[in-house]
Amino acid sequence: MHELIEKMMLPAFKNPWLEARHDSALIELAGLRLAFTTDSFVVSPLFFPGGDIGSLAVHGTVNDLAMAGAKPLFLSAGLILEEGLSMDTLWRVVQSMGSAAEACSVRLVTGDTKVVDRGKGDGIFINTAGIGIIEHGLTIGPKSVRPGDTVLLSGDIGRHGMAIMTAREGLAFESSIESDSAPVASHVQRLIAAGIEIHCLRDLTRGGLASALVEIAEASSLHIEIEERSVSVRGDVRAACEVLGLDPFYVANEGRFVAFVPAAQSEQAVGLLRSDALGAEASVIGEVRAEPSGQVTAQTAIGGCRIIDLLSGDQLPRIC
Amino acid sequence: MHELIEKMMLPAFKNPWLEARHDSALIELAGLRLAFTTDSFVVSPLFFPGGDIGSLAVHGTVNDLAMAGAKPLFLSAGLILEEGLSMDTLWRVVQSMGSAAEACSVRLVTGDTKVVDRGKGDGIFINTAGIGIIEHGLTIGPKSVRPGDTVLLSGDIGRHGMAIMTAREGLAFESSIESDSAPVASHVQRLIAAGIEIHCLRDLTRGGLASALVEIAEASSLHIEIEERSVSVRGDVRAACEVLGLDPFYVANEGRFVAFVPAAQSEQAVGLLRSDALGAEASVIGEVRAEPSGQVTAQTAIGGCRIIDLLSGDQLPRIC
Repeated sequence: MHELIEKMMLPAFKNPWLEARHDSALIELAGLRLAFTTDSFVVSPLFFPGGDIGSLAVHGTVNDLAMAGAKPLFLSAGLILEEGLSMDTLWRVVQSMGSAAEACSVRLVTGDTKVVDRGKGDGIFINTAGIGIIEHGLTIGPKSVRPGDTVLLSGDIGRHGMAIMTAREGLAFESSIESDSAPVASHVQRLIAAGIEIHCLRDLTRGGLASALVEIAEASSLHIEIEERSVSVRGDVRAACEVLGLDPFYVANEGRFVAFVPAAQSEQAVGLLRSDALGAEASVIGEVRAEPSGQVTAQTAIGGCRIIDLLSGDQLPRIC
Repeated sequence: MHELIEKMMLPAFKNPWLEARHDSALIELAGLRLAFTTDSFVVSPLFFPGGDIGSLAVHGTVNDLAMAGAKPLFLSAGLILEEGLSMDTLWRVVQSMGSAAEACSVRLVTGDTKVVDRGKGDGIFINTAGIGIIEHGLTIGPKSVRPGDTVLLSGDIGRHGMAIMTAREGLAFESSIESDSAPVASHVQRLIAAGIEIHCLRDLTRGGLASALVEIAEASSLHIEIEERSVSVRGDVRAACEVLGLDPFYVANEGRFVAFVPAAQSEQAVGLLRSDALGAEASVIGEVRAEPSGQVTAQTAIGGCRIIDLLSGDQLPRIC
């Protein structure tokens, strides 16, 4: 995917917005700063512990806007339905989208529905695009990261990917793992309102924590060092990962992000994130250094050091 | 689809934007008037005479923005690829999107790509969402239509649907029918710039001319009467429709629209539309009356009158 985007999409649509490689494009219109983003959702199964494709499609786009520091305002929804889908399933998904949008205070203002023949789709695919408004003066992105910055993580990792995997494979662990799918825009707004000088934000979707950190290290040409044991992974998630031979650092999340902030504000920022249930496990997980440029390393629990790299395959296909 | 939207989507996302039932949602932000719209494209085959899914995905959304009288500015693109799709096919589609965007002067600023398993998609599905700016003070929509208004049609009808149909079914007519897929935003902008007081615009996509007129007659509670022989249908399109038992009035177009304008300005408006090749066949096709409310009638060539109604089935599935 990384290669596809670099080699095909960027040359075909050459423009500064795509080249910024942000989750959202930043648009200036008559003095107004807007963020604009899109995401398609093809998750299988459609319903999973802790969420469904409808709420996921709202949270995913709201979170991409939040990662630009934008306040999400408006969503579009494009539904592609496979012939034979039950009206009951569709109604549950549509209602879930409606409730999620209301909970995020975004308005779903325009939509489209297409039906494809049986066997040419997979139940429901949903695309959402979103518009948010940027009301701060920060430049949030990898280029703003500085040596000495603190890396914050907004909660425990790996739950969304493992919830999907266990639901899809019919694996039964002692307890059911619930997805962490949730909107994070209000958390980001809280940091900004308190004057935290956020340098970079990234949500930990496909590729998980590891891929997000590697992308930021590469784009900023800096070294990110994290401490493994500071990264919260629930016991059941860790156990499920072990059984399936997966590394939780690479497993997808849908309600988690990293924030790069000046060290002097890190304690205040963690306190702000922890002020509600969603951010209860927020923590400092590492810091930024100048060298070795473009690299992510992890101090392991037994005192070693490992290099974190991009995975070449996909650990978990169709998790979003 | 009509029923699905009325009974499911509107209640789930209850808000004034959706209830306006426009092609685009009108958004006001700090004094700025924007249009926001989305459309998914699932056309089969991906390539057809006169276009492909890539250019169609750009034109479709640009045209939806144009129907609000907006100047299209930014697009998002969400691609859903079926595993096994050739890179060559993808590259052709992506290049076609890039060229179409450039020709329309819109920037494709944000995108997303997902891959689904073989047999769970159909080559490529594309969603585009678009943002445009409204720089006029007109209220364009069915509620602004008035008795006495003239109905303009921007060109000949039926070509897109018949191009898809003949390509899909491998039908060989004497000449190949090319889709009319084209962006119409510059035509609308030309009318607005010249001071034409546009009351309503509607592009003639799914359901064709007939469905667009019926929807406007119902929403405005007025009577639209058209003269059948004023509606331009190419000979090969008419012949293909006859062979297949289709009515060209219901066949989809992707570069045609109707405009409702005050009678006093209709001649000037037709002249403006005809000033380039795309609008060369623009014509006056009818007028608006008060009664019978909500009805569309057509004066036939032999002097009769027929009532135009919505089709309950889909004449041509997956034409966009």
